[in-house]
Amino acid sequence: MAKIKRYLPRRPKSTNALHQAPGTVSYVGRKEQVETSLEVIDYNAENFERFSSKTPEDAFKFEAEDRTTWININGLSNTAEIEKVGKHFELHPLIIEDIVNTNQRPKIDDYQDYYYVVAKMLYYKEDGQLENEHISMVLGKDYVLTFQESGGDVFDGVRERLAKAKGRIRSRGADYLVFALLDAIVDNYFAVVEEMSDKIEALEEQLFNSQPNNHTTFEIQELKKTMLRIRRAVFPLREVVGRLEKSKSGLIQAETTDYIRDLQDHMIQVSENIEIYREMTWGLMDMYMTTISNKMNEVMKVLTIMASIFIPLTFLAGIYGMNFEYMPELEYRYSYPILLGSMFLLLLGMLYYFKRKHWL
Amino acid sequence: MAKIKRYLPRRPKSTNALHQAPGTVSYVGRKEQVETSLEVIDYNAENFERFSSKTPEDAFKFEAEDRTTWININGLSNTAEIEKVGKHFELHPLIIEDIVNTNQRPKIDDYQDYYYVVAKMLYYKEDGQLENEHISMVLGKDYVLTFQESGGDVFDGVRERLAKAKGRIRSRGADYLVFALLDAIVDNYFAVVEEMSDKIEALEEQLFNSQPNNHTTFEIQELKKTMLRIRRAVFPLREVVGRLEKSKSGLIQAETTDYIRDLQDHMIQVSENIEIYREMTWGLMDMYMTTISNKMNEVMKVLTIMASIFIPLTFLAGIYGMNFEYMPELEYRYSYPILLGSMFLLLLGMLYYFKRKHWL
Amino acid sequence: MAKIKRYLPRRPKSTNALHQAPGTVSYVGRKEQVETSLEVIDYNAENFERFSSKTPEDAFKFEAEDRTTWININGLSNTAEIEKVGKHFELHPLIIEDIVNTNQRPKIDDYQDYYYVVAKMLYYKEDGQLENEHISMVLGKDYVLTFQESGGDVFDGVRERLAKAKGRIRSRGADYLVFALLDAIVDNYFAVVEEMSDKIEALEEQLFNSQPNNHTTFEIQELKKTMLRIRRAVFPLREVVGRLEKSKSGLIQAETTDYIRDLQDHMIQVSENIEIYREMTWGLMDMYMTTISNKMNEVMKVLTIMASIFIPLTFLAGIYGMNFEYMPELEYRYSYPILLGSMFLLLLGMLYYFKRKHWL
Amino acid sequence: MAKIKRYLPRRPKSTNALHQAPGTVSYVGRKEQVETSLEVIDYNAENFERFSSKTPEDAFKFEAEDRTTWININGLSNTAEIEKVGKHFELHPLIIEDIVNTNQRPKIDDYQDYYYVVAKMLYYKEDGQLENEHISMVLGKDYVLTFQESGGDVFDGVRERLAKAKGRIRSRGADYLVFALLDAIVDNYFAVVEEMSDKIEALEEQLFNSQPNNHTTFEIQELKKTMLRIRRAVFPLREVVGRLEKSKSGLIQAETTDYIRDLQDHMIQVSENIEIYREMTWGLMDMYMTTISNKMNEVMKVLTIMASIFIPLTFLAGIYGMNFEYMPELEYRYSYPILLGSMFLLLLGMLYYFKRKHWL
Amino acid sequence: MAKIKRYLPRRPKSTNALHQAPGTVSYVGRKEQVETSLEVIDYNAENFERFSSKTPEDAFKFEAEDRTTWININGLSNTAEIEKVGKHFELHPLIIEDIVNTNQRPKIDDYQDYYYVVAKMLYYKEDGQLENEHISMVLGKDYVLTFQESGGDVFDGVRERLAKAKGRIRSRGADYLVFALLDAIVDNYFAVVEEMSDKIEALEEQLFNSQPNNHTTFEIQELKKTMLRIRRAVFPLREVVGRLEKSKSGLIQAETTDYIRDLQDHMIQVSENIEIYREMTWGLMDMYMTTISNKMNEVMKVLTIMASIFIPLTFLAGIYGMNFEYMPELEYRYSYPILLGSMFLLLLGMLYYFKRKHWL
Repeated sequence: MAKIKRYLPRRPKSTNALHQAPGTVSYVGRKEQVETSLEVIDYNAENFERFSSKTPEDAFKFEAEDRTTWININGLSNTAEIEKVGKHFELHPLIIEDIVNTNQRPKIDDYQDYYYVVAKMLYYKEDGQLENEHISMVLGKDYVLTFQESGGDVFDGVRERLAKAKGRIRSRGADYLVFALLDAIVDNYFAVVEEMSDKIEALEEQLFNSQPNNHTTFEIQELKKTMLRIRRAVFPLREVVGRLEKSKSGLIQAETTDYIRDLQDHMIQVSENIEIYREMTWGLMDMYMTTISNKMNEVMKVLTIMASIFIPLTFLAGIYGMNFEYMPELEYRYSYPILLGSMFLLLLGMLYYFKRKHWL
Repeated sequence: MAKIKRYLPRRPKSTNALHQAPGTVSYVGRKEQVETSLEVIDYNAENFERFSSKTPEDAFKFEAEDRTTWININGLSNTAEIEKVGKHFELHPLIIEDIVNTNQRPKIDDYQDYYYVVAKMLYYKEDGQLENEHISMVLGKDYVLTFQESGGDVFDGVRERLAKAKGRIRSRGADYLVFALLDAIVDNYFAVVEEMSDKIEALEEQLFNSQPNNHTTFEIQELKKTMLRIRRAVFPLREVVGRLEKSKSGLIQAETTDYIRDLQDHMIQVSENIEIYREMTWGLMDMYMTTISNKMNEVMKVLTIMASIFIPLTFLAGIYGMNFEYMPELEYRYSYPILLGSMFLLLLGMLYYFKRKHWL
Repeated sequence: MAKIKRYLPRRPKSTNALHQAPGTVSYVGRKEQVETSLEVIDYNAENFERFSSKTPEDAFKFEAEDRTTWININGLSNTAEIEKVGKHFELHPLIIEDIVNTNQRPKIDDYQDYYYVVAKMLYYKEDGQLENEHISMVLGKDYVLTFQESGGDVFDGVRERLAKAKGRIRSRGADYLVFALLDAIVDNYFAVVEEMSDKIEALEEQLFNSQPNNHTTFEIQELKKTMLRIRRAVFPLREVVGRLEKSKSGLIQAETTDYIRDLQDHMIQVSENIEIYREMTWGLMDMYMTTISNKMNEVMKVLTIMASIFIPLTFLAGIYGMNFEYMPELEYRYSYPILLGSMFLLLLGMLYYFKRKHWL
Repeated sequence: MAKIKRYLPRRPKSTNALHQAPGTVSYVGRKEQVETSLEVIDYNAENFERFSSKTPEDAFKFEAEDRTTWININGLSNTAEIEKVGKHFELHPLIIEDIVNTNQRPKIDDYQDYYYVVAKMLYYKEDGQLENEHISMVLGKDYVLTFQESGGDVFDGVRERLAKAKGRIRSRGADYLVFALLDAIVDNYFAVVEEMSDKIEALEEQLFNSQPNNHTTFEIQELKKTMLRIRRAVFPLREVVGRLEKSKSGLIQAETTDYIRDLQDHMIQVSENIEIYREMTWGLMDMYMTTISNKMNEVMKVLTIMASIFIPLTFLAGIYGMNFEYMPELEYRYSYPILLGSMFLLLLGMLYYFKRKHWL
Repeated sequence: MAKIKRYLPRRPKSTNALHQAPGTVSYVGRKEQVETSLEVIDYNAENFERFSSKTPEDAFKFEAEDRTTWININGLSNTAEIEKVGKHFELHPLIIEDIVNTNQRPKIDDYQDYYYVVAKMLYYKEDGQLENEHISMVLGKDYVLTFQESGGDVFDGVRERLAKAKGRIRSRGADYLVFALLDAIVDNYFAVVEEMSDKIEALEEQLFNSQPNNHTTFEIQELKKTMLRIRRAVFPLREVVGRLEKSKSGLIQAETTDYIRDLQDHMIQVSENIEIYREMTWGLMDMYMTTISNKMNEVMKVLTIMASIFIPLTFLAGIYGMNFEYMPELEYRYSYPILLGSMFLLLLGMLYYFKRKHWL
């Protein structure tokens, strides 16, 4: 463990960014930017078309009547292209700002004609770091726009089901598609929480085997931070889903509401799991403290036993090392073996005493 | 205590399951599956019939007019059979999914024509592990469906009362039956919380007798986890019962509401007990910490007393072990007995000092 | 302190009780049962009659027009007699069940024609244990029924005031009587909380005089449990009184509401006191921890001072106890007194050093 | 610090008081009672009259038309006089009871024709104890009654402003007077919280200079208790002021509401300060714990350094103090200086080692 | 670190201030007062004028039709000038009081014709102290008044955008200006929370490298206090923004509401960050405790190893330092080398033992 890692996302520090006008569209995200690309899926119960493009203009040509259109935009660095999409669908300027502001927390905004939803994808990267990806969705009458920061594969399952006309997904409208996408995100939360639980278990086992090292406390602190980040991503989404469920707007059909209620159930379940793991993580610190104290107790016992046995014996030897002229025992023939014997008995007595005290 | 056990239920990890379409019916439960079987009880105030079957088709033949029909399905692994039952009673597909998803938390869904209720049976297995069984109920106009994961005996008391026409149970309808089944589950919670309390008491006694071992902290942590699991099963059910009580739907008769309110009382009582035991479990950790500290104090006292007494005496012996040529005391005849006497007095003084400090 | 005592009430464990039909009347209480007896007080502003009986039938004869009748039943073990009372006043079967179920938490049930109220009497027994007595009340149009588990003397003050026509009590109806009875119970809570506070103070003084023993942590834990029990009895009653105050039913007269609001004030006051003592009890554990640590510090200081002074001196003595042939100091005439003097100076220096460090 | 002081107010313990009828007027306060006296201030925008009296009868003669009358009663021990006042203004008997019950918590009661308000004055006495004075107010159409336990000087500022016609106070009615009185009380809370903060700071500095004594933990506990007492006085008043602000009754004029809202702001501010100091007080305990641990670390380091240096050296000296006949080094001429030199080098090495470990 | 600094703002202590009439305008702020000065900006989509003045009278001349007027007053010490402004705009006297009372917490007051908003600017001064500046705003139909305590540069960005007609700001009215000013303040909170996070990280690294000093606990306590101050400034503003968003008054245009909702999002985000850093700060104390304990463990291990190895060896040397006449080993030729060898083996054994225990 070389260096403590930083987890919490930051708003940009530069004075420039701080004094920017609200509504200014500027990408606030990772250095290693993903190039912006578009993918259009256009479907209804009978038809299914899929199309990739680099520019939004190509994508817009593709829209057809009587179909649900799903446009997925990967990479948020090219703000110009994203603004073009926004203009085409007549999105509010603040939405465009939020799409590229990766620090935006999960929320839902109701703009009469469409819903704007922000969610967070969570996954563990290969280096064991928790990655937090910013995802925006716009749900319109017969279209869905999704904006992904780095184009992960979380929506692949949904694409496949659309392509293979598996399940109910093709015969339902845009609202069901948004549900399916959110469901894919929430399913992923379970996997992340799962991994969290594995880490807690690993630390517990390490403590159980009494092999904590000096960095255990920092690993626990890291765990706490990760937990807080997950909560931050998950908890606001609960409200988002709740508001979708209670939506009176015509955008959500009555039968989709049943599915959203089910999704809400899953959200509550994942939240409950997080709270439980949270309590366990906090408990780890207590366990660590008692483990340290137990180890210190052990150290102290060794010291006390060694000192208690040999200090008195050394004193006895010291007595007969004195140089007084008149010490009758010194001349007595059996003094030495008698003393050695007494010392041995004393030693046994001590050992018995410590044994009875359960120190040995 | 060989290995730390895992308690928290998991959603399946496989990518497959994660990308499944919502509404897909797949059993998520124990390896050692219980074979699916059905039992039908059909009764009114005068009549009572009981019938077992392997297939739902046989069961459906059995339904009669003017009677309440209770169909109990044991074992959730055979999803095909369960889907048949669902189709027969026109259940929503999401209900079928929840019936076999053993991770589903307690909830109630109101589908106008019927209620869908999820609850959790808790019991301690022979190996001391807390078992968490998934139970679903459907309450219709004149029927009740129950789905049990492993077919325990918790409903036996209700069956017996039905058979013997004991109490009010036979003359009331399906709503009272659901109340009776929930009441049986809640009664069981008291037994589980009771056992929890016994474990806390056992740990307290262990600490009281100052015989904690290095694993006590882990036993307390296990207790905490079990507590969290019990809460997880019990607390959402409180809301379920509360919503049954306030139900305006015609499915719950006015006079049954009084009984459900009573059940609600029991739920609150068991919840309060859980909270109290929870506080006590958290208190155990503090007690453990102070017990460790007290033990360390004891160890330190032994060390301090031994060292404080014998180190100065050894010093005195060391003085007269020096080889200076001009040490008048060495030649004096009574030096040795005088020194021994002084040492003895010093020893007594020390003991008196430690006695007064209450260290002995 | 011989054995840790159990405080929390239990629901019966026997499988039998668990599978009983709801509404079954079975007494769940103390072994040493109090024999059931009845006392009837019948009064209005002018008249007052008092009458004791062993059977309810005798009591019922006694009811008169234009008067308020208070029937007090002591002892809940004779469920048959209690059922007779219930039948006579047409009480709901669930009420009878709750009257004899001593684990029932405080609550109020509104059955149009009458209110059913459960409260808990708290008092310390001679052996220092907190006793928790189950009390039920039924408030009807012109009668009040009270059911006491063991017939304590808490209502004696009310009886006396009724007999002596003291205060407003005789000229008001049944609702004021229920208020007066609840007021007597709540007044008693103040005494119990008072005693609690004395115990906290005693422990504080014990810690203050630095004389905690190994069982102090368990005494604090006991205090915590008692606190939790008191809360359990008091807090739900707050809601009960609150609902009485807001009652729209004709059973509570407008002018009695003022008194009930005052009672509500007292409930809040006792609850606040409980919360304050609770915080103080939790604070005790922290104080205990610091007291232990301070004691350990003291022990360590004694050890460190003794060892730091005498180990170097012993080393010096050891130097001149060596048997080298060529050690010029040994032959020098004033070596011995010079060494003794140096040792003494070293001792003084050490003492000064520890003095300055405030260790002495 | 001679004795731990008791802070929490008590309800009387005597069985007598416990069994008193509700509504019985009995003074529950300090031993050293203040004699009851009255002061009447009668004013409008043009006129101002002030009058002192020993009996209420004299005071009542004084009331004039078109003026606001403020009657201040000091000392609550003479309950008869207070009952006379109550009768004259037709106050509810429960109000009289609450006026003399100094344990009554802050509250507001709305009796259509008048408001009854209870508040608590807090101030530090000369002996450093926090004094808690019970203050009652009655706000009628054109009169204000105030009842003070011990007649402090908190209302002097208001009197002065009335006398000098300073500010808006004379031209407004009774409702503004009550606002001004409450404002005076709340202003005082800031001073008390201020003093609290000084005490926390003093303790922090004591800990910072590493000079905690064994009683520091008790001083922190006292601080906690005082904090809890202040909260108890302040928090319920927030609700009182809030209800005054939202009052629909004609007793509060619309323009006074603005002032009361401002007062509400101050209440929230003082509450927030209390919560902050509370967190800091709780933090003190943690700081104390770490300070103790740091001190113990220091003690242990001294012991470890002394023992680690001199125990090995003593061993070396012991080796050459042995009496074997064949120990060639003993006869070698430079053995002694070589050994002394080696010992010195060992000492330097040890010191260097401890230096590098930052123990010195 | 010389002295613990005081952070929490205080209300004035002087008896004088305490007994002042409410509504009295007196500046409660810093000693080093900023001289009061005014700046007027008058703009609409086409025009922009800027004007500085020392007296309000000059400023008022400047107001033009069809334009939005922003008057910024720097320095609150000259209360007379501020009262003039208040009179000109017909502000309620309580507002003037709040403008100069720098302890006033963030709030919004709705006076039909205008809104009064209080907010807090936070920034770190060069000496590392967190500065808390009191800012008031009045939003009228076509004017905005802002009152700054010390005239910082936080609004410079807004001024610049107004001057350069950048963004939407010039074409919108006074409500958008207030939004822009609040947005500037909230943006600054992110920078402050950022700096907070850096401090936490620095402390974590210090602990991670096991180099806490005795003052670490005080630095953590300071961090806690700063955190509490930030919360105090930020959390009430959340409610302020929330009430602006829900405002039904004509002062806020519908399209500005979208921007305010976005600001509300930022408020929630900064609040969440604060809560997360708060948890981490509290976690630091735990980490510090475990770090101390780990260090003590290390010290104890050194002591135990040194003592356990050399005390037995010294005892052995003591044995052969005894002066008994009959000790056969003394005369045996190879006794000395054999003993030295045995001692060396014992030493190795000990080292191996401690190695296996992971103490070395």
